[in-house]
Amino acid sequence: MLKPVNIDLETGISVCIINESDAKKLGVERDDRLILTNPSNRLFVAAVVDLAKDIVKSGEIGISSSIKQEIELESSNTIEVTRAEKPESFQYIIKKINNQALNFDEIKQLVEDIRHNKLSVIELTAYMTAVKINGYNIDEIYAMAKNMSDNGKKLNLNVDGTIVDKHSIGGINGRATMIIVPIVSCFDELYIPKTSSRAITSSSGTADSMEVLANVNINSEQLQTVVEKCHGAMVWGGAFEFAPVDDKIIKIERPLQMDPQGQVIASVLSKKLSVGARKVIVDVPMGKDTKVKNLVEAEDLSGKFVATGKKLGMEIRAVITDASTPCGNTFGPALEARSVLEILEGKTYDNLAEKACELAGELLEMCNVVERGQGYTKSREILKNGRALKKMKQIIETQGKKFDSSDKVPIGEFHEDVFSTKQGYVRDIGIANFTQIALASGAPFDKGSGVMLMQKQNNSVDKGDLLFKIFADNKDKLNYATNLAKKIEPVKVDQIILEEIN
Amino acid sequence: MLKPVNIDLETGISVCIINESDAKKLGVERDDRLILTNPSNRLFVAAVVDLAKDIVKSGEIGISSSIKQEIELESSNTIEVTRAEKPESFQYIIKKINNQALNFDEIKQLVEDIRHNKLSVIELTAYMTAVKINGYNIDEIYAMAKNMSDNGKKLNLNVDGTIVDKHSIGGINGRATMIIVPIVSCFDELYIPKTSSRAITSSSGTADSMEVLANVNINSEQLQTVVEKCHGAMVWGGAFEFAPVDDKIIKIERPLQMDPQGQVIASVLSKKLSVGARKVIVDVPMGKDTKVKNLVEAEDLSGKFVATGKKLGMEIRAVITDASTPCGNTFGPALEARSVLEILEGKTYDNLAEKACELAGELLEMCNVVERGQGYTKSREILKNGRALKKMKQIIETQGKKFDSSDKVPIGEFHEDVFSTKQGYVRDIGIANFTQIALASGAPFDKGSGVMLMQKQNNSVDKGDLLFKIFADNKDKLNYATNLAKKIEPVKVDQIILEEIN
Repeated sequence: MLKPVNIDLETGISVCIINESDAKKLGVERDDRLILTNPSNRLFVAAVVDLAKDIVKSGEIGISSSIKQEIELESSNTIEVTRAEKPESFQYIIKKINNQALNFDEIKQLVEDIRHNKLSVIELTAYMTAVKINGYNIDEIYAMAKNMSDNGKKLNLNVDGTIVDKHSIGGINGRATMIIVPIVSCFDELYIPKTSSRAITSSSGTADSMEVLANVNINSEQLQTVVEKCHGAMVWGGAFEFAPVDDKIIKIERPLQMDPQGQVIASVLSKKLSVGARKVIVDVPMGKDTKVKNLVEAEDLSGKFVATGKKLGMEIRAVITDASTPCGNTFGPALEARSVLEILEGKTYDNLAEKACELAGELLEMCNVVERGQGYTKSREILKNGRALKKMKQIIETQGKKFDSSDKVPIGEFHEDVFSTKQGYVRDIGIANFTQIALASGAPFDKGSGVMLMQKQNNSVDKGDLLFKIFADNKDKLNYATNLAKKIEPVKVDQIILEEIN
Repeated sequence: MLKPVNIDLETGISVCIINESDAKKLGVERDDRLILTNPSNRLFVAAVVDLAKDIVKSGEIGISSSIKQEIELESSNTIEVTRAEKPESFQYIIKKINNQALNFDEIKQLVEDIRHNKLSVIELTAYMTAVKINGYNIDEIYAMAKNMSDNGKKLNLNVDGTIVDKHSIGGINGRATMIIVPIVSCFDELYIPKTSSRAITSSSGTADSMEVLANVNINSEQLQTVVEKCHGAMVWGGAFEFAPVDDKIIKIERPLQMDPQGQVIASVLSKKLSVGARKVIVDVPMGKDTKVKNLVEAEDLSGKFVATGKKLGMEIRAVITDASTPCGNTFGPALEARSVLEILEGKTYDNLAEKACELAGELLEMCNVVERGQGYTKSREILKNGRALKKMKQIIETQGKKFDSSDKVPIGEFHEDVFSTKQGYVRDIGIANFTQIALASGAPFDKGSGVMLMQKQNNSVDKGDLLFKIFADNKDKLNYATNLAKKIEPVKVDQIILEEIN
């Protein structure tokens, strides 16, 4: 019997904290499990043990309010504490470490144990590392996607049409999604409830940029309303509980900068399943600075997306896109949002606009709303005739408008121009380098921070020509980013003859 | 600037706890790192972030007293907090996940970062899982052993002779070490400072059983005194800081029930290195219930021990021993200690005594203190003529005597006899089953708890014959263990004809 005290650590797992002396008595060590029973109603919960010297005294047990809720503990109650076995799925973790494939039921159990916070951080980390090294086969990816989706909420659109979706294997600048969604939403037969993440490694995610223009933090009922009205929406996926297990997994993967291929596919498709998507276009950007470096990897990943989608009852088209150079000329939430509006307003048409029209075109053809071969042309037409802009304004308005015209989007009040120190031609513009500078300037947290490129690859430049501008919401961060830019020289200006040997 | 509050979580890593709202402001998430600087002296330390809703309020930061000490924080100070990069060794973790071998300097950095608590639980778990799956080559095992030893204290014996040691790849009953050490210590030219662990998976470790007879919890100065006087000692290794990094690694491996082969070898050899051992005998018990299941595994493991030892300047002989049946007839700290004394007193000579004489013999031959081929005979002679018992009493006395004669060793006051329910012969006596029953009876925490076997393999038994006795310090645990024994039937009594088909 221990006396409960409040300890609200946000570990994401069910943890209890006991004094070292009690641990010795109970014969448990850190990361063992205890069953905590409310003696007055026999409700119980399993919790992983953490140890304390001071904050929890002998005779006490530190638990979170969620544990308290689960066993309906009154403030006066004490708790019965007994040793517990490891959860059933522990053996499947060992199995995956030993490079054996898991079957559907084993993955189902794993997902359920993750969902109910039954695995410790150590166990879940070991599992994800084993998945990274040993991989998943298609059946495992399918089981993971299906069970992650089944263990979460679903979007139930009350519509008569095809629900479609779009996903990019991220990490680059641009925000083609914010052009594709309004184009696709112009079709009465189509619905595109696009949920996006915030930036994980890049200087802006679709949710970050969209948030500059509209409210993206809406619940699933509101999302349903927006999509039923506008045929499209762009919101932050974290606000829904579409695949809560995926969030718990990402919390482990993020600090390890680890993205096991099979888990990434399962993660994406579980969410497509949860919104009820039937046709999905997946963008696989390929380039030296993206997640996918070469055609072999790109084709392998694409093939797995298509095969797993089929098992899930979805039609998927994966397109491998050129990411050898930045997509559009901006990095950072507000700068990228402004670029998107400029394209929708017809002020510019660059490689970002081109990409959006090509991808939207593919999706339109998949859905048979245009004739085969006409998707791209139709997309450009919708962009040019202003229907996409009108649709975008409707979506922004319906989600909760902040800004809907490019000249009103606020960008960082401080800026610095960076000039070429020599004459030559632009040999290389690295996405990774500009991402790094944009992150240093404060993006994605500081919405107005980022970088605007003033040159394209192969441009010829003179000494003193403007190469790029750095924007920031904060003067210190601007200086930090400017110094970094001078150090890493993200735009390589060279002459064709690199060296002369006499 | 945050106000420090005391949070003494025994996570084994350098952790600070901040409020969720401060985390958002700082742009960090759980498992990111902060640099904590004492503004009055500029001393700083890196700490991994954990988040809290309640226990740490906005504006506060929870830190352990060890962090406070490290930056010499007065109670009135506030702390400067800034985001920190991942430690250098993080990239080596990624490298190991990608199945690339690490070089000496990379492992050196890793060991140092583990030593200084710079890696988070997630990072260290990912590393150990990667080592489990991708393995180490001999150079990596060498680098790990060397650096783990260099990152700890060393035993500096002031002796003129050969320092030797013995290790078993554990998990079985018996305690041959407690017979080998007194035999070897009878030689003036040899010194055997044996440090042991407590049980990890078995019902008793050498330290658990020795602790029934003598004090094992002594510091390295005391160990030095005992060994210089008696030529041998048996103490608990956890009391020294011989390879503190190893302890931190074991804290991750234990909850995963994971023992990556290369890491096990490095762990053992780092400690042999720290006590200055030059000749080491390694016992590799092989059987269906031991860590090593077959000859291929046993030979592979043995070969790696020998090769790594050579690089470390040690001569190692690995012997593969038969563990198809229990070693001696007892399980549990006090019961095993009593068996050992009975053998030293000449009251019994069983397969445990035989094993000890064979292993001691090998070690004596390696050290050239007996002629080649005479080691085993010499060991039996020392056992029979009472010199080993005399030496054991001297060691017990010098370490701090509790008991030194078999009839005085206290065993559990409660016991239960288990009888055969049929007639036949003993087909199988499983080590794992008896370990499980002994654990259920309270071993290794309850010293007097355990099991005593009353039959050997291939004995013929009648219905009602005594098969084994269960001992316990506590009546409830005795009942629990007895019920378990009836369920798992650890002694398989069968008839030769198993079935008749007409």
